[in-house]
Amino acid sequence: MPITAYEPRPLAKDTLRVIPVGGLGEIGRNMTVFEINGKLLIVDCGVLFPEEHQPGVDLILPDFSIVRDRLDDVLGIVLTHGHEDHIGAVPYLLRLKRDIPLIGSGLTLALIEAKLKEHRIKPYTLTVAEGQTEQFGPFELEFVAVNHSIPDALAVAIKTVAGNVLHTGDFKMDQLPLDNRLTDLRAFARLGEEGIDLFLVDSTNADVPGFTALERSIGPVLDDVIRRAPRRVVVASFSSHVHRVQQVLDAAHNNGRRVALLGRSMVRNMQIAAELGYLKVPENVLIDFKKAGDIPDNKIVYMSTGSQGEPMAVLSRMANGEHQVEIGENDTVILASSLIPGNENAVYRIINGLMKLGANVVHKGNAKVHVSGHAAAGELLYCYNILKPKNVLPVHGEQRHLVANAKLAQQTGVPEENTIIAEDGTVIDLKDGVASVVGQYDLGFVYVDGSSVGEITDADLKDRRILGEEGFISIIVVIEAQTGRVVVGPEIHAKGFAEDESVFDDVKPKIVAALAEASKNGMHDQHAMQQVVRRTVGRWVNTSYRRRPMIVPLVIEA
Amino acid sequence: MPITAYEPRPLAKDTLRVIPVGGLGEIGRNMTVFEINGKLLIVDCGVLFPEEHQPGVDLILPDFSIVRDRLDDVLGIVLTHGHEDHIGAVPYLLRLKRDIPLIGSGLTLALIEAKLKEHRIKPYTLTVAEGQTEQFGPFELEFVAVNHSIPDALAVAIKTVAGNVLHTGDFKMDQLPLDNRLTDLRAFARLGEEGIDLFLVDSTNADVPGFTALERSIGPVLDDVIRRAPRRVVVASFSSHVHRVQQVLDAAHNNGRRVALLGRSMVRNMQIAAELGYLKVPENVLIDFKKAGDIPDNKIVYMSTGSQGEPMAVLSRMANGEHQVEIGENDTVILASSLIPGNENAVYRIINGLMKLGANVVHKGNAKVHVSGHAAAGELLYCYNILKPKNVLPVHGEQRHLVANAKLAQQTGVPEENTIIAEDGTVIDLKDGVASVVGQYDLGFVYVDGSSVGEITDADLKDRRILGEEGFISIIVVIEAQTGRVVVGPEIHAKGFAEDESVFDDVKPKIVAALAEASKNGMHDQHAMQQVVRRTVGRWVNTSYRRRPMIVPLVIEA
Repeated sequence: MPITAYEPRPLAKDTLRVIPVGGLGEIGRNMTVFEINGKLLIVDCGVLFPEEHQPGVDLILPDFSIVRDRLDDVLGIVLTHGHEDHIGAVPYLLRLKRDIPLIGSGLTLALIEAKLKEHRIKPYTLTVAEGQTEQFGPFELEFVAVNHSIPDALAVAIKTVAGNVLHTGDFKMDQLPLDNRLTDLRAFARLGEEGIDLFLVDSTNADVPGFTALERSIGPVLDDVIRRAPRRVVVASFSSHVHRVQQVLDAAHNNGRRVALLGRSMVRNMQIAAELGYLKVPENVLIDFKKAGDIPDNKIVYMSTGSQGEPMAVLSRMANGEHQVEIGENDTVILASSLIPGNENAVYRIINGLMKLGANVVHKGNAKVHVSGHAAAGELLYCYNILKPKNVLPVHGEQRHLVANAKLAQQTGVPEENTIIAEDGTVIDLKDGVASVVGQYDLGFVYVDGSSVGEITDADLKDRRILGEEGFISIIVVIEAQTGRVVVGPEIHAKGFAEDESVFDDVKPKIVAALAEASKNGMHDQHAMQQVVRRTVGRWVNTSYRRRPMIVPLVIEA
Repeated sequence: MPITAYEPRPLAKDTLRVIPVGGLGEIGRNMTVFEINGKLLIVDCGVLFPEEHQPGVDLILPDFSIVRDRLDDVLGIVLTHGHEDHIGAVPYLLRLKRDIPLIGSGLTLALIEAKLKEHRIKPYTLTVAEGQTEQFGPFELEFVAVNHSIPDALAVAIKTVAGNVLHTGDFKMDQLPLDNRLTDLRAFARLGEEGIDLFLVDSTNADVPGFTALERSIGPVLDDVIRRAPRRVVVASFSSHVHRVQQVLDAAHNNGRRVALLGRSMVRNMQIAAELGYLKVPENVLIDFKKAGDIPDNKIVYMSTGSQGEPMAVLSRMANGEHQVEIGENDTVILASSLIPGNENAVYRIINGLMKLGANVVHKGNAKVHVSGHAAAGELLYCYNILKPKNVLPVHGEQRHLVANAKLAQQTGVPEENTIIAEDGTVIDLKDGVASVVGQYDLGFVYVDGSSVGEITDADLKDRRILGEEGFISIIVVIEAQTGRVVVGPEIHAKGFAEDESVFDDVKPKIVAALAEASKNGMHDQHAMQQVVRRTVGRWVNTSYRRRPMIVPLVIEA
């Protein structure tokens, strides 16, 4: 469904404008822009991972068009936590202006700084912690601890002359978190009493009834599986899930096993987490991968990446027998991770591959080895009741999540007209406790492919889909300009079309005849001649094969 | 993992050979070949639907190579039920020999006959029913009623001088089925007492603990949703799920609504089911789609196809606003269907699209509107205990399902060495109660694309994947044979590569120089010259864009 774009009215003085730029209608590329009295604040700047209809794309960025010409007015980028869908697009924004300050917790900034180093950018940063208050021009920011599947996540309250906003970032409300750092409902209560005019709230699990299980509940399962494992154990998880890795280290330690970290991002992130004290490494547990082979099979745990079936990651290579760690009979592999929609087939292929090699595979389908990082419906209800926001803007979710979240808000008493189902680019103005939709920008997908940023269009992706499904047939003909007589060719080649190229002998005389006919009728234009070739070959292939490969004609006049 | 193929030993007299040709290591293209004393029997002949790494493929057939030269020895094809993954490849096998008899229940044969009519094949058929016994040469067949997500499914016992086999086909054990036609455990018990030497058993849900819920339990949910629906209701389901449609008709009828069937296969299958008495249509409930617009919105139910997100099916077109039934505020859409792995993103896109149009969407994620058609672990245990088979061959499943099923058999007392985890092409000989693996054929995937059958190779699919992810760059150069001097071109065109074609101005002089250099060094061979172009462009694009499009060079000597 194409959206209907319309220009927002001019922003009035002392009115707060909120524009979700990414993360609405999708899980990823979260980014929200706040503006008041000429100054801008950005919260999060993440990437989205492509789906199957966006082939070959590496990453999708938020559309920066609405801030591109106003970068001098941006006072800072608040990063709520260190996940890719919240920080991954920062390097691309900083390429446009390097000195926009980044504001976030210690771990969050350490992770983005490591990423920026690869882009050769050294950012300006301000490290903040829960409870801290900072003034940025017209924005007073207060940071609130929230619990999530990465440590040190923050919600941010944004107080302005036009009203107060609370943005949760990603969060859940584990009541016995591993690091004892709870989502700070006391702060939520206080902010609610002060009055929250607009509440931007994580919708990811709004359609999941009940409560997310405790992260802590995974520990005993890991411990049990590792204790009973007769041989090597491989655990795969997200490389930023410090608490999950913590529990693997602890379970290994309890069972007298050493742990070798595998995968570049796993090694890097855990080094950062350990240095900053977020990961407590038991003494004498970690061992370098190079030395892990010397340890007896029943004394080692490999902690690896690739839990989503990524083809180049460690786990996939193990399943294909292409990794140094050769999985065999009685090895145990634990996928301590979610199964992101779209990745199912890839993950199942890995599970099947590992099982064919003889491994025992433990995953969330057959054991309690994963809990989500997002608040389920029950937790969101607590939130709404403690905060009692005037207006609610569900963020971070597809339409189905946003709608489910709005319904939860309504059930706690937020009037339906005060719950806003928005899209990327929706413009919301806040003033005197009233939030109104005043415009809609038509924001696009910005595709990163290799070193190209934004060059790839939806038309190119359509070409790729046709090429990927049907292949192409290219026809090269050199003709005599005057007569249309073919002097070289037709040379016909095909890729992904699959038939023996001798089948094209059939169509070559048809092309020659069609070109002669066109020329006789006075046609000389190269483009028109190419259309003649395209139609001739297209008709032939459709009749003969009932297929529609891309037809790429080239008529050259000699 | 490539399989290790080895020729089976010659088949001894009075020994039964069993070869699963399809359906092991995959969900689909089920087919098993039985042979004894020179005669063959085939059970099922279905298709597999492609995954994302098989782009553009319409269907995947079993590899018929092991029966292709022996079709005169095939006494018949037993079809256990009418699902595509069990009957869909029959037209392709009958193309090789039209007069092989098809053996199945009334509904199963009616469905395959309708399909064969499209292929202009009129088959020889033998209609059988539960309890019936038929002798085909050395095979005595006994048919046993089983309950599944399509009516009239049969298991088949195959009795030979070498021993007795029971093949379940697809089944579950709903104890209160809608048509009161139970999986016949009395027959299982009797066959078990007679002695089953080899048990081929559906593995689809072997890794699902417990029991599949009753199909009947969906009725009240449908009734409730339809009763409370303020406006139109659309229900999407599989077009062969007669009992699901039955429950929709009944619920509509109870609530004073008419039902219009939508989608070619839905209309055709329900017509067949009604004619044969499997679908009991309440009087005055069905209405032609053309007249449905005249009915008030709160008096109509549309029963449609497209529950798996198929882009051309009714539901997808509704979600995109491209269907005559324009979904709007307060319409209710029920997806009374499973969510097959790989289809998640497509289905969620439809759900999001429908919700954006204002519909209330009910699906298995938020209501009990679907139950599986396959026996879960608890049911399989009943089966093993009643049958007490000597040997077990789990079929119909990926490795993870086959392994889970074998473990269930072992838990009921089948010795581990008597449970066979096989692959497509594994050759199993049965004699004197002993089942032995005696060979492994290397069977391939046979791809159907348009009207091509078997022409598309895995290499073509690899080309398609590269084209689909990266696009291509084609370079045409006409050179003077003697000097290598470029007389026309380089003409460079790209599709799916995305950059403005003017970027190629950069690389053209490099190509001209490289060709001149090659020619100076005595190179004249066309293939070698093309390699020069490929390398020159490949290096340039990789350095400039960090991408790897397909490079398609053509050097023509004038």
